[in-house]
Amino acid sequence: MAQIGFVGLGTMGKPMARRLLQAGHEVTVWNRSRAAVEELAAAGAKPAAALAEAFARPVVLSILADDASVHEQVLDSGVLAAAECQVHVNMATVSSDLAATAARVHAEHGIGYVAAPVLGRAGVAAAGKLNILAAGPPDALATARPVLAELAARVWDFGDRPAQANVVKIAVNFLLGAAIEATAEATSLVESHGIEARSFIELISNSLFPGPVYSGYGALMAEHRYAPAGFTVPLGLKDTRLALSAAHEHQLALPTASLVQDALLQALAAGWSERDWATLAEVARARAGRPAATQSD
Amino acid sequence: MAQIGFVGLGTMGKPMARRLLQAGHEVTVWNRSRAAVEELAAAGAKPAAALAEAFARPVVLSILADDASVHEQVLDSGVLAAAECQVHVNMATVSSDLAATAARVHAEHGIGYVAAPVLGRAGVAAAGKLNILAAGPPDALATARPVLAELAARVWDFGDRPAQANVVKIAVNFLLGAAIEATAEATSLVESHGIEARSFIELISNSLFPGPVYSGYGALMAEHRYAPAGFTVPLGLKDTRLALSAAHEHQLALPTASLVQDALLQALAAGWSERDWATLAEVARARAGRPAATQSD
Amino acid sequence: MAQIGFVGLGTMGKPMARRLLQAGHEVTVWNRSRAAVEELAAAGAKPAAALAEAFARPVVLSILADDASVHEQVLDSGVLAAAECQVHVNMATVSSDLAATAARVHAEHGIGYVAAPVLGRAGVAAAGKLNILAAGPPDALATARPVLAELAARVWDFGDRPAQANVVKIAVNFLLGAAIEATAEATSLVESHGIEARSFIELISNSLFPGPVYSGYGALMAEHRYAPAGFTVPLGLKDTRLALSAAHEHQLALPTASLVQDALLQALAAGWSERDWATLAEVARARAGRPAATQSD
Amino acid sequence: MAQIGFVGLGTMGKPMARRLLQAGHEVTVWNRSRAAVEELAAAGAKPAAALAEAFARPVVLSILADDASVHEQVLDSGVLAAAECQVHVNMATVSSDLAATAARVHAEHGIGYVAAPVLGRAGVAAAGKLNILAAGPPDALATARPVLAELAARVWDFGDRPAQANVVKIAVNFLLGAAIEATAEATSLVESHGIEARSFIELISNSLFPGPVYSGYGALMAEHRYAPAGFTVPLGLKDTRLALSAAHEHQLALPTASLVQDALLQALAAGWSERDWATLAEVARARAGRPAATQSD
Repeated sequence: MAQIGFVGLGTMGKPMARRLLQAGHEVTVWNRSRAAVEELAAAGAKPAAALAEAFARPVVLSILADDASVHEQVLDSGVLAAAECQVHVNMATVSSDLAATAARVHAEHGIGYVAAPVLGRAGVAAAGKLNILAAGPPDALATARPVLAELAARVWDFGDRPAQANVVKIAVNFLLGAAIEATAEATSLVESHGIEARSFIELISNSLFPGPVYSGYGALMAEHRYAPAGFTVPLGLKDTRLALSAAHEHQLALPTASLVQDALLQALAAGWSERDWATLAEVARARAGRPAATQSD
Repeated sequence: MAQIGFVGLGTMGKPMARRLLQAGHEVTVWNRSRAAVEELAAAGAKPAAALAEAFARPVVLSILADDASVHEQVLDSGVLAAAECQVHVNMATVSSDLAATAARVHAEHGIGYVAAPVLGRAGVAAAGKLNILAAGPPDALATARPVLAELAARVWDFGDRPAQANVVKIAVNFLLGAAIEATAEATSLVESHGIEARSFIELISNSLFPGPVYSGYGALMAEHRYAPAGFTVPLGLKDTRLALSAAHEHQLALPTASLVQDALLQALAAGWSERDWATLAEVARARAGRPAATQSD
Repeated sequence: MAQIGFVGLGTMGKPMARRLLQAGHEVTVWNRSRAAVEELAAAGAKPAAALAEAFARPVVLSILADDASVHEQVLDSGVLAAAECQVHVNMATVSSDLAATAARVHAEHGIGYVAAPVLGRAGVAAAGKLNILAAGPPDALATARPVLAELAARVWDFGDRPAQANVVKIAVNFLLGAAIEATAEATSLVESHGIEARSFIELISNSLFPGPVYSGYGALMAEHRYAPAGFTVPLGLKDTRLALSAAHEHQLALPTASLVQDALLQALAAGWSERDWATLAEVARARAGRPAATQSD
Repeated sequence: MAQIGFVGLGTMGKPMARRLLQAGHEVTVWNRSRAAVEELAAAGAKPAAALAEAFARPVVLSILADDASVHEQVLDSGVLAAAECQVHVNMATVSSDLAATAARVHAEHGIGYVAAPVLGRAGVAAAGKLNILAAGPPDALATARPVLAELAARVWDFGDRPAQANVVKIAVNFLLGAAIEATAEATSLVESHGIEARSFIELISNSLFPGPVYSGYGALMAEHRYAPAGFTVPLGLKDTRLALSAAHEHQLALPTASLVQDALLQALAAGWSERDWATLAEVARARAGRPAATQSD
């Protein structure tokens, strides 16, 4: 049984913390809004009165919203100066830049820093079947690994520099955006020839493109079903920009990411910020001069 | 047992004709070069001395190289004037434009015209497990369906206008090109951060992007293995152009296809016309200023 | 005084033929619709009863609509077999491909073929101040030059192969499309920050970007004045495609031309086929989520 | 005679300060490296021992390198708290974001803030013939105008919000990048058909595209002359990014800027960071599979 600090009880953090509790670990939880802390306490977690209590456990997992949250709550909050943990595992999708900064700052405080962003949504997290993409100093990673294993179908090792795991996650999300945009364009192409999106999506899902991406997003497109969003346009735009910026660090152009970014901006300009990023299908339809579809129920 | 004319014994045509023979049909085969005709005759087919003999059977299947071949051998050769077949099923990947012309010309001669391009390579054809995308007049399609069923895991119906099946095939190949380009860019991104292509491809194949496309083309990219080509750069370019032109018919821009076209042109300009179109990975690496990889063995 | 056959009395052909008459030449004119022939006859031209009469003069200038017209009226009409001219100067904006074919066909009939597309609109033609971009065999070009000089501020020599002059013309029109698209985007950028298009256009015309392009098209954009069109969207699209296809002959990608093509397709999809291609400004405004402007009067 | 503080004696600042001295003004100069201060003092300027001395004059002009310099030396240095000036005119090319921040911070200290970036290089500045793009509160602008007039062929007024002048400057530089990229592509197109870049550039400069941009950058491309750089690739990239970011503030995609950004990144990846951004011609040539040209002397 490990003693674990857990920081960030959002959509993903909550089922992950619960999973660790079910596996019999002692989990000290902290979250900015208290409701989630109390919810987890009711499930057996130790509520932390302050962030520092979570960082007093040997292994701390955190999954915060974005670069800014990590800066505000962890890197710039002073919590690391007094922290007693050996390893901090940052499971959020953040920039490779932030990962480099965080690795440096943690090292200054003698804390091992591991990046371990995940693939899989809340249900997958609850089942402990995530794909966890990990990178960091070997000893820190060795310490974190048994805890991560409780949450994962597989823990993938992507190197000693934490930023590497973040780049892998960013590259996967870029592939996702690219697949959505291509499916949007292909769908608008077949529709322009009088073919139903639904049967086209069924075909590709049952032949060359099995798996959740083409069938899942394709269904949203065929049914014009963009709300409630699984992943909103602004989140898609954020991740596309992380890809561009990770590429630009090494003077690498990613033309497809530029194109996806432009399409997501058009979605925002059209007022679709609350929608799922599958709404790129409507951007493609607008390009074809067709009126935007209203959501079917 | 059906009497079938079969025209075009190339990479795909040969296993398809064999499959029909194995299913017990009488298959009259014709091909421009005689070697293939004799090979099939040895396997039990009736060799046609002239194309007209194949077009004397009630159902004719053809799978020729491209628009130009269909024009030269079928539409402009005079064979239709004397043809006794009820239905001609064109299984090649041709333009939507050609499909429209062919439908009109066949109708003038009282012959049903069905477009039925396929998904799947030679091995899949041999096993009779193709996905066949069919479209055409309902009665012609009904006549063709039992024959097509011998070759297919599933025969998909995409409408009354033959061009519709071609557009679906073209849209699928566009998705393929888009997935290859995106994988090429994503791979160059992770490599620029010191991560091996191989492990990135393993991750995506085992999580969000299962199926043959990402793992198959990804492996070629990771191993710099572009020859022998499964599908060459010029063939990829041909199909990308079919997508652009099917879109332009309806004044639809396909920005991702424009981008894939540009990348394939760069591959040609680099002298890679014999390579598999997975070599888009090398175009992406060149963009990053890295020397082109030599093929690993 | 030269004896000149003149074929094609459209917007450009008419003032060019008049200019040659004013310079004292004998001009035998032919045009598919007779009204223009009679108009020029009233101005002193010799009306040709058939195309062959024009091709009986030593030097023939033609300026037809596009590749198809040149094929239909000249290359495939049989007129060359009986032609007595020494040189045929094709002044239309046609593809480099057509130029190569035309050069070959004329050579077979012992006729010199010069390509000499022009820069400048009707008013410039009337004043004999065109820029004429010429290419062709040196002796044919030498024969044509004195006649062309009557029409031109300058006759530019771009090589021995006629296609070269066409490629130069195509490249200039590509630059034009690119400048219009960039001005459209820049205008939408400043407008999104509350700056009037008009003052932005005034600035660029009076500083880095003098000359007719930025000020002329910029004024149309600032005033939302797209009709009557100086050059319609379909014409712009045709020329952009000529650029792409001249580039693709040599396996060259032109990313900016792909982008301009996509924007022009969106203009067509929006129903703006009668408008000037300055309407790319409205495509850019639509991208920003702004309602299309109605034309100001 | 005005009393002017002048901050930033770089390539542009030096001739501007000299020009003000020649016009008879009292100019108190400050620069981080002292050599430039002494050089101007020798020409009659008052050397400031500290930045605060410059900000003690009624009107301060500054022209610093970029956003970071403005932050470090002005906004975050404390100098504004003690400043006695009425108006600070920031003539640098900075982001619209910085302009908004600067306007707010200056207002808090009761100082008028005007943005007044310029068009024109050092020689034009020395001659007092710049185009100055100004925006800011009317009273502050009225105070600054007579001083700006000494430096300018024309002072353009782009509104009350300083950011507006910066956006105009950014939009002009975006047009510049777009024109360079288009000229690079057009040049590679004509070259692929065996036409010399030099004669193509001469044609466009003497017909549709007069003015310094096409002829100037075109000459660099024709002669492969990229060093010494008038404006380096990294500077071009910085300005292209300012355009993208000013557009993204209003959810506006600028596809041409995305494309120029990608091409500039390829130039960096090729190792050309010291070159003039006209080297986009070599990126285009590389796209065509041609070896990079060595600089001609």
